[in-house]
Amino acid sequence: MPAKWWGWGDERKSFALADPQRFWTFLEQRVGKTREAARLRSLDEVALRPSRLDGRQLAALRRIIGNANVSADTADRAVHSLGKGYRDLVRIRRGEIAAPTDAIVYPDSDAQVAATLDLAASEAFAVIPFGGGTSVVGGVEPFGDKPTLTLDLRRMARVVAIDRVSGLATVEAGIFGPALEAALNAAGFTLGHFPQSFEYSTLGGWIATRSAGQNSTRYGKIEENVESVRLHFPGGVIETPAVPAAATGPDFNQLVAGSEGAFGIITSAVIRLARLPEGSDYRAYLMHDFEAGVEAAREMLQSGLTPSLLRLSDEVESEATALMQAGAEGMTFSLFLLGFDGDEAEVRSCWERAEAVMERHGGRSLGSGPGEAWRRSRFEAPYLRDVLLDRSVMVDTLETATTWSNYLPLYRATRDAMQSAMGGRGIVMAHLSHAYTHGASVYYTFLARQSEGEELEQWQEVKDAATRAIIDGGGALSHHHAIGVEHRRWLSEYLGDSSLKLIRSLKRAFDPSDIMNPGKLIPPAKEMT
Amino acid sequence: MPAKWWGWGDERKSFALADPQRFWTFLEQRVGKTREAARLRSLDEVALRPSRLDGRQLAALRRIIGNANVSADTADRAVHSLGKGYRDLVRIRRGEIAAPTDAIVYPDSDAQVAATLDLAASEAFAVIPFGGGTSVVGGVEPFGDKPTLTLDLRRMARVVAIDRVSGLATVEAGIFGPALEAALNAAGFTLGHFPQSFEYSTLGGWIATRSAGQNSTRYGKIEENVESVRLHFPGGVIETPAVPAAATGPDFNQLVAGSEGAFGIITSAVIRLARLPEGSDYRAYLMHDFEAGVEAAREMLQSGLTPSLLRLSDEVESEATALMQAGAEGMTFSLFLLGFDGDEAEVRSCWERAEAVMERHGGRSLGSGPGEAWRRSRFEAPYLRDVLLDRSVMVDTLETATTWSNYLPLYRATRDAMQSAMGGRGIVMAHLSHAYTHGASVYYTFLARQSEGEELEQWQEVKDAATRAIIDGGGALSHHHAIGVEHRRWLSEYLGDSSLKLIRSLKRAFDPSDIMNPGKLIPPAKEMT
Repeated sequence: MPAKWWGWGDERKSFALADPQRFWTFLEQRVGKTREAARLRSLDEVALRPSRLDGRQLAALRRIIGNANVSADTADRAVHSLGKGYRDLVRIRRGEIAAPTDAIVYPDSDAQVAATLDLAASEAFAVIPFGGGTSVVGGVEPFGDKPTLTLDLRRMARVVAIDRVSGLATVEAGIFGPALEAALNAAGFTLGHFPQSFEYSTLGGWIATRSAGQNSTRYGKIEENVESVRLHFPGGVIETPAVPAAATGPDFNQLVAGSEGAFGIITSAVIRLARLPEGSDYRAYLMHDFEAGVEAAREMLQSGLTPSLLRLSDEVESEATALMQAGAEGMTFSLFLLGFDGDEAEVRSCWERAEAVMERHGGRSLGSGPGEAWRRSRFEAPYLRDVLLDRSVMVDTLETATTWSNYLPLYRATRDAMQSAMGGRGIVMAHLSHAYTHGASVYYTFLARQSEGEELEQWQEVKDAATRAIIDGGGALSHHHAIGVEHRRWLSEYLGDSSLKLIRSLKRAFDPSDIMNPGKLIPPAKEMT
Repeated sequence: MPAKWWGWGDERKSFALADPQRFWTFLEQRVGKTREAARLRSLDEVALRPSRLDGRQLAALRRIIGNANVSADTADRAVHSLGKGYRDLVRIRRGEIAAPTDAIVYPDSDAQVAATLDLAASEAFAVIPFGGGTSVVGGVEPFGDKPTLTLDLRRMARVVAIDRVSGLATVEAGIFGPALEAALNAAGFTLGHFPQSFEYSTLGGWIATRSAGQNSTRYGKIEENVESVRLHFPGGVIETPAVPAAATGPDFNQLVAGSEGAFGIITSAVIRLARLPEGSDYRAYLMHDFEAGVEAAREMLQSGLTPSLLRLSDEVESEATALMQAGAEGMTFSLFLLGFDGDEAEVRSCWERAEAVMERHGGRSLGSGPGEAWRRSRFEAPYLRDVLLDRSVMVDTLETATTWSNYLPLYRATRDAMQSAMGGRGIVMAHLSHAYTHGASVYYTFLARQSEGEELEQWQEVKDAATRAIIDGGGALSHHHAIGVEHRRWLSEYLGDSSLKLIRSLKRAFDPSDIMNPGKLIPPAKEMT
C-alpha cells in the first residue's frame, strides 16, 4: 500500500462524495469561496535538517537492531516526524518540518528495545515510540534539543498467544488494527476496538493514548481491556500481573495507559477479548432535535442497554451527513445511528427495549440503510479531510466528555465558542459517540476557509476557544485523543498543580534524564506559569 | 450500638448456629477437641503505653479540631490501634497492643484535615486515616517510631449532593455502608457495594483498599465506581476531574484507589450509582462438584450475564454451610447461589438464559430458600469467628483472583498448600464470589485448633504457605483485602522490583517525610532484600 505522506491512508484512495457539486455549493454558502491549495509534490523536495546522529552512533544502533532496520533516509525521517492532525498536514504539505527526527529504528524484540534504550540513555538521545503515527495531538513529533530516535514498532506485531478459555490474548504492541482483528476473529474473538484510525494505528498506540473505538459503548475504551502491559523505560521494565482485578496498590495498567511514550515504550499487552458476535443489527432514527436524542441515549445506557453503535449527530452534522452520503439537503433533524451486536435472540431483545426508548423520545425509524452505509464508510472520513485541504478548507476535530446533567450546557458553550472564534464564517458540528451510564463524549468537527499564510494561527484560535470552553464547562480535556503537544499547556489548569506535580514525579521515576518522548503529555518547565 | 472491642460488630449479637451440637461434633472431628479460650474481660485492663503526645501538641490539635474531638483516652486508643483480622483479635483478646496510637482526632471538614496534616508534618507525627477499622491486613495499625495520630473520619459522613440525571453522588468518605445506601435508596439509586463488613466500614475505606462487595459481579468493585476522588496529602490536595472517561494521562482515580492511606487521606468522592433495582430473584443450585460450577460461572459471564449474586462454594464449604444453616450433614455437592437484580422482565430474561447454563452443567435447583437464607445472614459470618475464637479455634480468610484458564490449578495448589501447612488437622474451604468475563476470585476460609501460646506463629505458617502458592501460581496477591502489613513483604516479588520502586517514588512525591500510614502498602526499607 503506497502511504499518502501528505494526508491520510492509501494514496490511491479518495473520498467519494455522493454529489460533489451540491456538496461544494453547500460548503461555500457557509464558509465562502474555496480555492485550490498549493502543496509540495514530492517528499524529495523537503529540505530536512541533516541527521544529528554521527556514523559511530548509527553503527551502534545497527549493531543492536541490524543494518536493514536503522534508517536515516530523508523520506523515512519526514513521515516519522509528524502525526496526522490538521497542524501536521498543513506543515507537511508545505514541506515544513522544523524538528525532524534523526533516525528511525525498527526493533524486532524486547531485547532490542531494551538495548536501544540503554544506548539512548548513555548517548542522551531522545526516544519517541511510534506505532501508526496517526496522533492528532502532536504525539510523535520531536521536541527539544536532544538528537532524536524514533522507535517504530511495526516489526513487533505478533499475536503471541490466545487463551481461549479466559478470553485473553498476548499481543505485541506494533500490530495494526486489521491484522489484530483478523487473528482474533479466526479464534472466535474480537477486541471490539475500532477507532477511526483503525486501519493505520496500533495496539501500543491505542494504549499509550487511551483510545476509544466506534463500538466502545459496548466493548469499552482500550484501557478497560488491558489485563496486563509490558513497558520498557530507561533502566528497567515492568510487566503488570495478568489478573482480572486486584487490591495491590495503585493500578499500574491505568498508569501506563495514557502515558503517551513519556514514561516508556509499551512492547506488549494481554488484552481482554469479547466473543465474536454472531451478528449485528444497525439502524437509523431521526430525532426531532439533538436534545431529544441525548435524552434517548441517556435512558438507553441507564436502563442497562449497551449498544455497540451509538452515534447521535447534532442538526448541523446530520444535514452534512445526508448531503455527503445521499446528496440530500435541508435536513433539520438529528440523526441517531444505533446498533446491537450478539446472537439473534440477544439482538432482538435489545432492539425491543431500544425501540421503546426511541419511541418515547419521538424517534422516527429510517430502517437499516443509513446504519449500514455508515458501517461501509466508517474509516473514510479522514480521506474527506484531504479533499477539503486540497481546496484550502481548514478542517479539524476535537472532543471531550462530561456527565449527563452537564452534557447539553457543555455542548452548547463549546460549540458557540468555536463558532465565535471563526467569526461566524465557519461550520461547527458535533456528535455523541461514546456513551456511559453516567455521561458521554462530545466530538466536534469544525471547518472554515483557510486564512492564507496564517493557517496555523487561525486554527490555534479556534482550538484555544474550544479548550477554554471545555475546561470552564467541566469537560474532560480529552476523552480519547490524548494530550500530546496540543493540550499540554492546559493540563495544569485541568488537573490542578498538585496532580501535575505528581505526574512530573512519575516521569522522573521512569525517565530521570528526560529522554522519553520529551515535550509530550507533560508541559516543559518553561511553559509553566 | 455497643461495639464489640474484642471481636466483630455489635456486642449484643452472636452467631446463631442451626444445631450447635452437630456443628461442634463436625468441627472437632476435623480439627480435634476444642477448649474454652481465655480473654481479657474489659478494655480497662489493657496496659497501654502512655500517649507520646505532650500537652502542647494535644492543645494544638484541639485548636484545630475542637476540644471534644481529640481523644487520648485509653479505650479509644486501644480500639483504634488494631483492625479486625485474626492477628488483631488474637492480640486484643490478650490485651497485647504493643504499638498503640497516641491520639485520635475526629475532624469535621476538609479544612480540619488539611490543618491536621500541616501540624503533623511540622511535628513529625505519623497519621493513620481510619474509617470503620475493619481492615484484615493490618491497615490501621501504628508502625514505626513517630508519635501517631489516628484520623477517624466518622464525622465526615455527609451525602453532599446527588445528581439524579447523571446517576452520581458526592459523598464524604467517613460514611458507613447502611447510611450511604439509605440515602441513595431514598433517591432511587444504589451503589450496589456490600462487602461483608458493610455495616461497619466506610466509603473512604472501601476506596483506599479497592474493596469488593457481595454483589460486585454486577455492580463492579469500588474502584470502577469512582468518578472522582479528593485526597489530602502533606502539602497539598488533589481532586480528580469528575468525567466518565478521559485521555489525559495516568488515571489518578486508579492511583488513589488502593493507596491505603499511604499517599494521603481520602475525604470525599463522586461515586457512580446504579438505579435501585425493582426486585431480585436469588436461587440455589447443587452442582456435581466445584469444577462443574466453575465452568457454569465462566459460561455465564462470558455469555454476557452479570448476576448480582454469584457465589459458588467448593464441596467442603458447601458441607459446612448446610450444617451451619440447616443442620444437614454429608453434603458432597457444590452449592451455587445465583441471583439477578432488575425489573421483572429483565430478571425473568436473565433467569431463562441462566437456567439453560445451569442445566448444561448438571445443576439441580434447590429453589429460592438457600439464596434467601444467605441474603438474611449475609453480614453474619464474622460473628461466627468470635464463637470459634471463644473455643480456641484459629479461623481466618484469604483471597486471590486469576484468569479462568488458571482458576482450578490455582485453587487446588493454594488449598493443598494451606492444608499441608496445617499438618492435615485443619479445614480449608473456598468459594468463588466475584466473577469477571476473563477470570474470577477465590476466597478461602481456614480453621484449625489453636496452638496454645503460638497462635500467631501457627497462623503465619498457613498464611505464608498460601501466599507462596498464590504467587507461584499466578494469582493476585490480593483481590480485595489489600496489602496493609500482611502482604507487604511479598509486594516486590509480586509486582517486580521496578514497580515497587515506582510506588516508592509515588510515595515520596505525596509524602516526602513518610508520615502517611507508615509501614502500610509499601515495605519498609529494612524489609527489602
